[in-house]
Amino acid sequence: MAVESEHQYGTEEFSQVELALAARNHGFPLETLRYDITPLGLHYLLIHFDIPHVDVTGWKLDIGGHVSRPVSLSLDEIKERPRTSIAVTLECAGNGRSRYSPRPISQPWIEEAIGHAEWTGTPLAPLLEEAGVEDGAVEVLFTGLDRGLQGEVEHAYERSLPLDEARRPELLLAYEVNGQTLPPQHGFPLRLIVPGWYGMTHVKWLDSISVLTEPFEGFQQLQQYWTKTSDDDPGEPVTRMFPRSMMIPPGIPDFPERRRYVEAGPCELEGRAWSGWAPVTRVEVSVDGGETWEDAALDEPVGDYGWRRWSHAWDPEAGEHELVSRATDGAGNSQPDEVAWNTGGYVNNAPQRVFVTVR
Amino acid sequence: MAVESEHQYGTEEFSQVELALAARNHGFPLETLRYDITPLGLHYLLIHFDIPHVDVTGWKLDIGGHVSRPVSLSLDEIKERPRTSIAVTLECAGNGRSRYSPRPISQPWIEEAIGHAEWTGTPLAPLLEEAGVEDGAVEVLFTGLDRGLQGEVEHAYERSLPLDEARRPELLLAYEVNGQTLPPQHGFPLRLIVPGWYGMTHVKWLDSISVLTEPFEGFQQLQQYWTKTSDDDPGEPVTRMFPRSMMIPPGIPDFPERRRYVEAGPCELEGRAWSGWAPVTRVEVSVDGGETWEDAALDEPVGDYGWRRWSHAWDPEAGEHELVSRATDGAGNSQPDEVAWNTGGYVNNAPQRVFVTVR
Repeated sequence: MAVESEHQYGTEEFSQVELALAARNHGFPLETLRYDITPLGLHYLLIHFDIPHVDVTGWKLDIGGHVSRPVSLSLDEIKERPRTSIAVTLECAGNGRSRYSPRPISQPWIEEAIGHAEWTGTPLAPLLEEAGVEDGAVEVLFTGLDRGLQGEVEHAYERSLPLDEARRPELLLAYEVNGQTLPPQHGFPLRLIVPGWYGMTHVKWLDSISVLTEPFEGFQQLQQYWTKTSDDDPGEPVTRMFPRSMMIPPGIPDFPERRRYVEAGPCELEGRAWSGWAPVTRVEVSVDGGETWEDAALDEPVGDYGWRRWSHAWDPEAGEHELVSRATDGAGNSQPDEVAWNTGGYVNNAPQRVFVTVR
Repeated sequence: MAVESEHQYGTEEFSQVELALAARNHGFPLETLRYDITPLGLHYLLIHFDIPHVDVTGWKLDIGGHVSRPVSLSLDEIKERPRTSIAVTLECAGNGRSRYSPRPISQPWIEEAIGHAEWTGTPLAPLLEEAGVEDGAVEVLFTGLDRGLQGEVEHAYERSLPLDEARRPELLLAYEVNGQTLPPQHGFPLRLIVPGWYGMTHVKWLDSISVLTEPFEGFQQLQQYWTKTSDDDPGEPVTRMFPRSMMIPPGIPDFPERRRYVEAGPCELEGRAWSGWAPVTRVEVSVDGGETWEDAALDEPVGDYGWRRWSHAWDPEAGEHELVSRATDGAGNSQPDEVAWNTGGYVNNAPQRVFVTVR
């Protein structure tokens, strides 16, 4: 039993700008990991600018750019198209940002920017096919109705995907979540779902889709969402979710520290694990702060892009304990003990640590 | 035009414990003020301990204590009783805590701990009547299924009401919100709704209701939710919501500071106002940081316990502006410029200030 830290949090302080973002954007309460599908209202939310109010009677989705047959579709017309549903684990690219030091002033997630919903809509690929993507196309741009300023540039939130990614059959234009009409905060009337990718790609409040002959160079594409070690480093674009395992903090919490208290004797630890690169194949659990590890039992995954439940028997004695879990995926990616720092504070999938007092 | 501050936030810093609470508990994005009824998932949430998971097949509500006919009711039995709905503005007693200095380490709300939902359930008063409240009863205790430690005391979250308050006809045992089954985070399967009172009174995940012959002295009743000016001051209990007006921040935001940018020319400012003491009778708006005030136009209130929409025409010139609004209720309570400090960081209804750059 090794307890390296008296305190489950660090000692860094946070600015009022960061607090205002944390108060506004919603984290996933970790006890919610017990549900296969995250109940509406508990999924994480990162609202980059404001939630736009969309009057659907005047709304149409324009699909244009480098295509032979541009189309403009109402929500009813989109709903008349083939309908499909998919369960998808979603995570913000900035999850874990507050655990980097130094960190940029942005949404200071600790580890709660996750969720796992069932999205329903119509596949994107047949729509691109019908619009007639012309030779020379390289990317597809997705533009939202949310606008604001960042880096002194006013812009709508928009992100592109390489053409091959945009044509993947599992990409969805979603108009429902968990069987309900999309609520405003999840992108009403229509959002993009890109299973396996971090959240910034899943553009909400879609206004238009445009096929491009040159790579998109907008603010949210080039200035954001790259893992750079310095301002001079070109870095790598943030794309798919790296593996992560999260545990339901066992027992009961205290307030305000949220340290955990557990009764001595047998109990079951459980959690969920996911990766955007390949299905999770292994979850390991340590009950001594990472000195020794054991394999957890894995349930079947929830589809190809949903998370995978795991469980592990624990029979603790009274005292202080530090619980850790880590995931490995079928592509050979594992959660590292420590993630390489980057300027944007992205993709920090260092393992969650849960400090427990057993009584 | 007076701008007293370059910055809409203060310069204080926040601890990691406070950040963890802010990341976990959900604030109301202020642009959501446009909706009469707050869409599910956008209402504020303060989850004191963990969200309990309730298997409704084994759940019953016990009504006992100093009554002649104790009862135990399943959810189906509760749903067979008279059904009513009420729109209620809810606000956390700690709203505005982060704007006090010094402040206790607790949920560091800025001003976003609000919401306005429609709750459906069965009135409490007839149930108390049927249980037969006996002579000598003084209070009714509401106990939730959520447990934790605070002040080194392990306890279920529970709060009492004076008998007269508990017998008010508008108190509800709610099993639906906005026409849907209560989701876990709002208190499934049953929560108390006490229209007009701050959120700590609206006990979620109800386990039992007990009629008492002595005032309840539990931790959440005596150690919390009193406005004290020092540890020696007995203070006043926190009960009904003091008046507050909130404005939809106009224009578009920047990221990460969320300062507002508005185009020059006529626009409409709008917001909502409420009070738990009496209906709001007046909202004033200042576009010069509080130097001069004008009356806003008021829409009809949403029932007796819902908020009241207001609007005000504004025709700004380019430059920096500071917008403020304040509410007055029919009982003569107004929002003060500054609220008297208290040790718990409660009931800070000092006016919201919105800093705007007009271009």
